[in-house]
Amino acid sequence: MTEQLLTLWGDVAALSAASAVLGWDQETQMPPKGLPARGRTMAALAGLVHAKLTDPALDDAIAAVEAAPADDVAATQARLARRAVRRASAVPADLARAMAETQSRALGTWQQAKADDDVAAFAPDLAEIVRLTLEQADAYVAAGLADTRYDALVDEYEPGWTEAMLAPLLGAVRDELTPIVAAAVDSGIVVDTSVCGGVLPVDQQEAFGRFVAARMGYDFDAGRLDTSAHPFTTGFAPTDVRITWRADDGDLRPGLFGIMHEAGHALYEQGLPVDLAGTPAGEAVSLGVHESQSRLWENLVGRSRSFWRWAMPHLVDHVPGAAVAQLPVGDRVDALWPALHTVQPSLIRVEADEATYNLHIAVRFELERRLIGGELDVGDLPGAWDDTYEALLGIRPTSAADGVLQDIHWAMGAFGYFPTYTLGNLAASQLFEAAAAALGDLDDQLAAGDLEGLLGWLRTNVHRHASTLDAPALIEQATGAPLTADAFMRHIRADVAEVYG
Amino acid sequence: MTEQLLTLWGDVAALSAASAVLGWDQETQMPPKGLPARGRTMAALAGLVHAKLTDPALDDAIAAVEAAPADDVAATQARLARRAVRRASAVPADLARAMAETQSRALGTWQQAKADDDVAAFAPDLAEIVRLTLEQADAYVAAGLADTRYDALVDEYEPGWTEAMLAPLLGAVRDELTPIVAAAVDSGIVVDTSVCGGVLPVDQQEAFGRFVAARMGYDFDAGRLDTSAHPFTTGFAPTDVRITWRADDGDLRPGLFGIMHEAGHALYEQGLPVDLAGTPAGEAVSLGVHESQSRLWENLVGRSRSFWRWAMPHLVDHVPGAAVAQLPVGDRVDALWPALHTVQPSLIRVEADEATYNLHIAVRFELERRLIGGELDVGDLPGAWDDTYEALLGIRPTSAADGVLQDIHWAMGAFGYFPTYTLGNLAASQLFEAAAAALGDLDDQLAAGDLEGLLGWLRTNVHRHASTLDAPALIEQATGAPLTADAFMRHIRADVAEVYG
Repeated sequence: MTEQLLTLWGDVAALSAASAVLGWDQETQMPPKGLPARGRTMAALAGLVHAKLTDPALDDAIAAVEAAPADDVAATQARLARRAVRRASAVPADLARAMAETQSRALGTWQQAKADDDVAAFAPDLAEIVRLTLEQADAYVAAGLADTRYDALVDEYEPGWTEAMLAPLLGAVRDELTPIVAAAVDSGIVVDTSVCGGVLPVDQQEAFGRFVAARMGYDFDAGRLDTSAHPFTTGFAPTDVRITWRADDGDLRPGLFGIMHEAGHALYEQGLPVDLAGTPAGEAVSLGVHESQSRLWENLVGRSRSFWRWAMPHLVDHVPGAAVAQLPVGDRVDALWPALHTVQPSLIRVEADEATYNLHIAVRFELERRLIGGELDVGDLPGAWDDTYEALLGIRPTSAADGVLQDIHWAMGAFGYFPTYTLGNLAASQLFEAAAAALGDLDDQLAAGDLEGLLGWLRTNVHRHASTLDAPALIEQATGAPLTADAFMRHIRADVAEVYG
Repeated sequence: MTEQLLTLWGDVAALSAASAVLGWDQETQMPPKGLPARGRTMAALAGLVHAKLTDPALDDAIAAVEAAPADDVAATQARLARRAVRRASAVPADLARAMAETQSRALGTWQQAKADDDVAAFAPDLAEIVRLTLEQADAYVAAGLADTRYDALVDEYEPGWTEAMLAPLLGAVRDELTPIVAAAVDSGIVVDTSVCGGVLPVDQQEAFGRFVAARMGYDFDAGRLDTSAHPFTTGFAPTDVRITWRADDGDLRPGLFGIMHEAGHALYEQGLPVDLAGTPAGEAVSLGVHESQSRLWENLVGRSRSFWRWAMPHLVDHVPGAAVAQLPVGDRVDALWPALHTVQPSLIRVEADEATYNLHIAVRFELERRLIGGELDVGDLPGAWDDTYEALLGIRPTSAADGVLQDIHWAMGAFGYFPTYTLGNLAASQLFEAAAAALGDLDDQLAAGDLEGLLGWLRTNVHRHASTLDAPALIEQATGAPLTADAFMRHIRADVAEVYG
């Protein structure tokens, strides 16, 4: 019986994989004039996925498994397939089409508005996106998928989490971080980050990034590295998981940590069980768990002293013109480390440091809850954005491009997405502490460039579960406790104390 | 009413475009371990196309247009959609699946057998492919799509042509070429082709190839050039048509003429009418017409003296180490030209010169007709292959890898495909003569590097028609006469006479 379910799901999986390949191609390979035709092809594939998910034959196949699941995995497959079917069925076809068309148009409008720093040009499309998103959320609520609009939206990215769970957790993180960041700024200490500069040819940075990603365990025979405007990871199967990056020829950090971040995502995708590939239970469980993997490698490994004890000579080999390579051998790691742990409020989320990053998320979480809750009009959003930045980060955007227009998410109708970034940051620290406790000598392993123990622990405790455990259960099983901000705050407090006294 | 037909066809077109993108990715980008999952995704997409083509709703929509077409274009859309539906419906699902699975397996077996030069290892799969192909052909005949098995197969690639039309035409070409090739060999004249060598860095060759393709009119903003094991062209829409190439660092010819060949294909795809994109009538009409476009640019333009009067200084600029660049300026074109018109029987079709190429096709045409006609057993094919090469080309393969295993076509179940190459060669010459007559001073235009007149003529007389005319009608309308071998033979005789006396 499960076989019939998985056979029908195979078409959904194939269409999704094909869409993912087309998406990767669009970002990394497609010639510019190909965009309109690609948009039509992607929209048609999305329509076909919707048709497959709402096909009565799939409903029957799920019901048959639900009635008498052969085993736990079968029950999970049915549960996850049922969830996808219910979400697809909840949205009327007209609304789905209107949403797809509006998103497609809004993406173009947003891109142009951002380039022109013209917030008014994007307002009408954003208002329409919000209106349709509310309709969609209402449809989910009406179908019994969630109790509130915002919960219905969060459920798309982070099943198992609700606004009532997120608000206190993210609120606590915000409230603990705000004074830490303010104190760091008030300290007057300015970290010398010139050590991250030097002569940094892109091909040398790429070679070093590839070297590090391979050492992390990223399998280049089941993946590849390309350049794109915004780095991302996409997996079509555990055997084909691709990452992208973008270098800054004046600063080592964006390129290297971008690659480590995406390789962290990719290790998760490459570690998903091959025997579940193309089934509902075979996918990554949530965006938060995904982000925990990228952040763990980027921040907990990549910015650690232990890692750099091993990595520094390799950096010097690969990028001999790096400023840090000009220092005496014994001074290099200590000179670099503070530059990897600056606390500096800035306007752009994707460039934010570890401490301020979650304040950027807090701004968005607050604003999108008010938008979805009907407490904030789209017309008032730009001002509210600037005010909230000033309140939480102490700085005020001077342009919409560096303010409310900076992210693509809302233009895509992705409300309820941003909190997953903070969940990922918190989970990264909690998982890393659990791994360190289990492995005993993780610091020594990192300092020896032995990253296999850590990867093995993640494979066993995170990757191999795919979606057979939901995200809260997965974190609790892996770490022995539900997700909290404790480990993350310990990590931030320790690092900030060391740099800013 | 046509709207309903085109809407339903939109899913077929989207699935086909997605499959084409995945195919391009597989040949140019995909990491090696991605192959099995890609195979499953491609098979699922093929199944979805089949399901869409056999959906009763499409049948109804076609019937509605057939009953009362709004205009000629609508009638053509219905006719072409009906043909695709009938071909898809004729083949039982079990047979289609068996064919897909066997082809997938046979491709792997063939690749390995070719690498190992082990014809016996491929024999069982090829026998199964032939068996299933016969079943498939019988199904087409039973459905009234063709009168004979071989015609049913040819119809897939070259609708409008039958074995009864092909046999005398290709037979005449073979019979006229055989003594010409024999005489060239017997002349004892050996052309000095070292002029095609020299110091030929791949990046310089690529830059020159891009320069020439752009001058031909290939729009790189609606396409791209990549490397692949076997050069090919693939179009997802007129606005996204990609070509690939492969360089030989000891010989200019494979790289440059490969790019001109593929760019010729690509100009056809980029010239298809955008307003018909994604509809049955919007596609290239046949493989033969496609090949006429590639061969026209590769052979009639690219190997002409006029073209080289313009191109030579640009070659020298781009590839200064080329042997021909070391000659006195006034000697270069005359030194190169004979090396572009050698007649040299060889074992490998894809490396064959213009005169011998169609003899390679003649071998395959004869053997596959006998296989499909039941006059030749798969077990006897290797010997028959070698005998036929000896009879037509005067040389005998010494290995299966250089003999019966060299082409991928039969491993893919593509019987009836090979004759389209010769049709393309004949049509290229006939179209080129017609274009020259219409343009008046084509030679002068080529010598001035003005390729726009020729492209304009092809756009008007070939490309813009897409599939609204069938291939025989298109050639007749463009050239004023049905397709014959006359123009091609005039071209070959003149060139061979000049080089071999």
